[in-house]
Amino acid sequence: MVHNYRVRVRYGETDQMGRVHHASYLHYLEAARIEMLRDLGCPYTEIELQGFLLPVIDLSIKYKGAVLYDDIVSVQTTVMLKGRIRIGFNCQLFVHDAIVSEAIVELACLSKETLRPVALPEFLLRAIQDAGDSTLQQ
Amino acid sequence: MVHNYRVRVRYGETDQMGRVHHASYLHYLEAARIEMLRDLGCPYTEIELQGFLLPVIDLSIKYKGAVLYDDIVSVQTTVMLKGRIRIGFNCQLFVHDAIVSEAIVELACLSKETLRPVALPEFLLRAIQDAGDSTLQQ
Amino acid sequence: MVHNYRVRVRYGETDQMGRVHHASYLHYLEAARIEMLRDLGCPYTEIELQGFLLPVIDLSIKYKGAVLYDDIVSVQTTVMLKGRIRIGFNCQLFVHDAIVSEAIVELACLSKETLRPVALPEFLLRAIQDAGDSTLQQ
Amino acid sequence: MVHNYRVRVRYGETDQMGRVHHASYLHYLEAARIEMLRDLGCPYTEIELQGFLLPVIDLSIKYKGAVLYDDIVSVQTTVMLKGRIRIGFNCQLFVHDAIVSEAIVELACLSKETLRPVALPEFLLRAIQDAGDSTLQQ
Repeated sequence: MVHNYRVRVRYGETDQMGRVHHASYLHYLEAARIEMLRDLGCPYTEIELQGFLLPVIDLSIKYKGAVLYDDIVSVQTTVMLKGRIRIGFNCQLFVHDAIVSEAIVELACLSKETLRPVALPEFLLRAIQDAGDSTLQQ
Repeated sequence: MVHNYRVRVRYGETDQMGRVHHASYLHYLEAARIEMLRDLGCPYTEIELQGFLLPVIDLSIKYKGAVLYDDIVSVQTTVMLKGRIRIGFNCQLFVHDAIVSEAIVELACLSKETLRPVALPEFLLRAIQDAGDSTLQQ
Repeated sequence: MVHNYRVRVRYGETDQMGRVHHASYLHYLEAARIEMLRDLGCPYTEIELQGFLLPVIDLSIKYKGAVLYDDIVSVQTTVMLKGRIRIGFNCQLFVHDAIVSEAIVELACLSKETLRPVALPEFLLRAIQDAGDSTLQQ
Repeated sequence: MVHNYRVRVRYGETDQMGRVHHASYLHYLEAARIEMLRDLGCPYTEIELQGFLLPVIDLSIKYKGAVLYDDIVSVQTTVMLKGRIRIGFNCQLFVHDAIVSEAIVELACLSKETLRPVALPEFLLRAIQDAGDSTLQQ
């Protein structure tokens, strides 16, 4: 399953190069992940309410073309389990059907109470497995 | 007492107008307030540890001149009590001795537990009174 | 005419108080203004292409209630001319029909070339007048 | 040569997890790179004035430990040429002598006029070679 999220570039996300600042992409990626989780039936607020945090532990991103103010960016995301604690997201960003960026983001599941790694909650594990690219990989 | 805080403009704080985005000023003001409180003996971390929050409840700012990438901004801040719950900050921002912005910011004291307004902790009340512009005003 | 813009709070817009950081509101206000101008037939990109900039010169905002992660914020905006160079926006922010913030923002028109104040371009003047709250005020 | 840059975490850089948001690190890395270039005699403003841009084209970062509000982050950076167009930076971030993050960032040199890749200006090439980890690599 490929999830698609669209977002319009804000003025404050540009810099004096006249294009979107490279850190702003991380906010688009985050919003895309969160909407994907919502569509999989796992709103992130629910995950935190149940006592879990999902911080980013690894991120790599390639910038292949400029994104400009007012552009509409399409973020296409796939998700997969990386064992029982980590989740991997693969993202491609498009503007007007041209690819402008690719990113891989990995989250780890922490207990909100202990701040130690714990297994992902069952409802999230199952939702990600059902989403497809998700044979349990160690 | 006028507190002086200096900060260098980051690239990501500019926008495609080629100047600092207007929202970035709020981060400079916040950093200046926090360094002032630290210098008054009241580090903000300590305030939160003791169970208080100080959210901004009112802010007004005038932009009088462009601030550019790599500029060093001097934020001159005075503080005053506004009764027992609220604190007012008056700020002037300078670049190369020219005033570029003026702002007034008001914080309110909340209990971290109840999220309701409460009197400022004694150590903070006293520190602000000692800082000077601080006759207890209702 | 009251323009309505809706935006969902991003995770990165919160701070450790567990609510939206006060500077993030300025990005919502900016996006709302820009969508209003687009709906009035004056996309901001077009304004810059024609050689004008519209920096914020004055902003005041009251924070009346916490905005939380994942909330959907409705920004209701009205616009009015302030003479031939400046534009004023009045904004109210709502979450679940409760008002959470009010703001007044003033922009000035600059020539992109000289960076000096100039009269607003005719197409923008007319669009704002047609939008209503717009008797020419000095 | 290892360059060291220190920066204090701002309140607005945290999120509701109670730690620094992962996108904020990119601003620390950028500030560190820029201070390193300044110390090498190549202020970034000068680079742009001479007609060049240095956008980020590739970035990967590992988050190894939480960074908290008010922490002082030390960014240790080394730089190397990657041919005549690209520059690579290796960064390690420390808080209280514990490593909290590692990142690799690659910039490409563009002509400000054509927005096409061009060779790095001579003064920058030489400065980076002199900085050491810099055998010309294709």
